[in-house]
Formats: sequence, structure tokens, C-alpha cells
Amino acid sequence: MNIITISREFGSGGRELGKRIADILGYSYYDREIITEIAKKHDFDEKYVETILESRFPFSMPITYGRTFSYTDATGQQAIELLSTQYKLLREFASKGNCVIVGRCANVILEEFAPLNIFVYADLESKIQRCRERAPENENLKDSELKRRIRQIDSGRAKHQKFLTDRKWGAKEGYHLCVNTSGLEIKSLSPVIAEYAKGYFEKK
Amino acid sequence: MNIITISREFGSGGRELGKRIADILGYSYYDREIITEIAKKHDFDEKYVETILESRFPFSMPITYGRTFSYTDATGQQAIELLSTQYKLLREFASKGNCVIVGRCANVILEEFAPLNIFVYADLESKIQRCRERAPENENLKDSELKRRIRQIDSGRAKHQKFLTDRKWGAKEGYHLCVNTSGLEIKSLSPVIAEYAKGYFEKK
Repeated sequence: MNIITISREFGSGGRELGKRIADILGYSYYDREIITEIAKKHDFDEKYVETILESRFPFSMPITYGRTFSYTDATGQQAIELLSTQYKLLREFASKGNCVIVGRCANVILEEFAPLNIFVYADLESKIQRCRERAPENENLKDSELKRRIRQIDSGRAKHQKFLTDRKWGAKEGYHLCVNTSGLEIKSLSPVIAEYAKGYFEKK
Repeated sequence: MNIITISREFGSGGRELGKRIADILGYSYYDREIITEIAKKHDFDEKYVETILESRFPFSMPITYGRTFSYTDATGQQAIELLSTQYKLLREFASKGNCVIVGRCANVILEEFAPLNIFVYADLESKIQRCRERAPENENLKDSELKRRIRQIDSGRAKHQKFLTDRKWGAKEGYHLCVNTSGLEIKSLSPVIAEYAKGYFEKK
């Protein structure tokens, strides 16, 4: 089974890259699907699942009292349950066949599937430009607001991974390939990265 | 002019990767040639040039006294001269035509040539194994000694770059592509990275 995981900085074009690579290679593609599935299984709103999974971790860690432990609050308990579902779903998807999975710490969770782990990043200027290009028409954020949002989302991703592993999010040692998309077109980049992935799996 | 710079951790196979990419693409290849040229120009031993350029920097920084400045020692003055020759040579090589340059902070020095900057790295185990494979027959270092050597050489490279720029050696933000060679054959990896480089220059 060839599994490609894409971790990415917000605005770096990693999601588009993942989708295009999947299309080129004829692999399945999982991204929002994971959130949708978790939401369905727990009968929660998708946005809620996303919020819980992405931003509540520092506050929802289990706390140990002597030999027992409790959770800081109800959300903590819920987060653990959602995480557990995410964990099972990712393994389910990975077992089905060749696929590209974007985000969700699949690089860490699917370690025993020996995935090809790609990290996609870019300089701040390129990320801001990419965010503007795909923003809804009525969104009119200042640069400073966009920068804050990028920082916030990436910091959430880093925390999410920190909760699951001691491997630092975005540190190149945890990935097989780190791709800087600054000033590059994702459309043009995709065939080359797909080629890399093909070569990687063939030669392993 | 298409310039590819390869920065690499010691034992990661970056040099071999650079040579193979140059061969595949039909580019010139510069590595030891730079040291050889500098040594010739200054009538120094190559080994001496290498030592001065790679390991003396923390001790040979110019020190400012009021409005004038002096050097900490004679080697400091020499280092600056060698650096200046290296600077000129790199620009000379780069101006001649498409090429791959390994090491020598070419990524920083040749910035205005808009090179494709690749960083090659690997986990410690792979680096030790690669060092063993290419060691002379009579070399019989313990793992701990090899680890120390790897650390020392990489730390020299990091300091060398720190002397020239505030961009941190090995930090992915300073490169276009970071390639983890752990467990991979450089021979198999090279055509894919060459393909990436080709795509990168075509689409720029």
C-alpha cells in the first residue's frame, strides 16, 4: 500500500498539491472527508469537530491525580473520543489502498504503514498571496489579520502533532521531502512531486 | 543560467546526489574544484585552505576597536582573503553556465543568480552507515567517533554559513527542496531530483 501524507503550512498550497498528486497517480484522496466522517459517526457538526480537533489541545490534556486521572473538562473527554475515531478512520482509509492524506497528523498516526511524508511550506508573502487568491469575494482582511490567521492555524497544527508525538511539526527530520512552494505554481509542481513519489515507492 | 546548489549533512549522500544530477542534466559540477582553485590562487595546500575555510570561523572574526578594526590573529586575515577568493570563484563558475555546486555556501553567495537550493539530510543511522561504506579500508572508527565527526563537520558548516548570513544552515526556509535520504539509494533518487530541477527551471 502506497500512502502519501501531506503536512502543510496554511496558505502554502499543500492541499492543492495533495489533490493533484492523487489525481495524477490515481490514488484516493482524503482531506475534509475525515472530518465529515468523524462528524457523522459522533453526530456532531463538522465545524465543531474541526474546532475541537484543531485548537483545544493545550486545554484538554488528561490530568493525573495520584494513580487515577481525570480530564480538565467535558471537551477534553470529547476530544479524546474524536481523536480515537480519527485514529481508527485514518487506519481504515490507509488499509483500503494507495492514497494521499492531507493533514490530520497522518504522518505520525500511520507510521507503521511506512508512508511517504511530505511537508509543504512557503514564505509568508507567498502564503498571504495564495490566501487572497482563494478568499471568498466578501472577505477583505488586512495583511496583518491574514498573518495572524496563518500563525494561529499553523500553531494549532503544531500543537495537534505535539499532543500525539514528540516529533516537532514542520521539522524536516520528520519528513521525507520538504517542498518550498514560494513563487511556484502548484499545477506545474505537482507532476514532478508525483514522479518523486512514484520513484520513492518503486525503489523502496 | 540554471544553478543548483546542494547543501548537505555529512554522510547524507548529498555530494553523490549533486554529481549524479549534474551528469543527468549535463550541467557542470563544482565541489573540490573550488578548494583546488583557491589553493592554487593563494599557493596554499588544499587541506590548509579547507581547514581555514571550514573550521576557524568562530576564532577569526574581525574585532572592532572604536572606529577601526583588526583581526584576532593572522589566520583571521587569511580566512577573509580566502573567503573573498571563494566568493569571486563561485560567481565566476556560476556565470559560465548551468551547474551544480556542492557546499561552500553557494546557496547564500549566489543568491542573485536565483539558484535552486537543495538541502540533503538523513537520520544518524543512515549517515553512519554511509560513512562506513565509503571509508578507506584501514579506517576503523567506533560509532561514537563517527557520530562525533559527523557532528563536528556539520557544526563547521553551520558556522561557516552563520558567518556569511543570518539564514540558519539546514533550516528548511532557506531551501527550495529538502531531501531526506535515509534508507534510500542515491542512484535511484537522482533521476527524480534531476526531474524536479528541470521542472523547477522550466516553470520559473
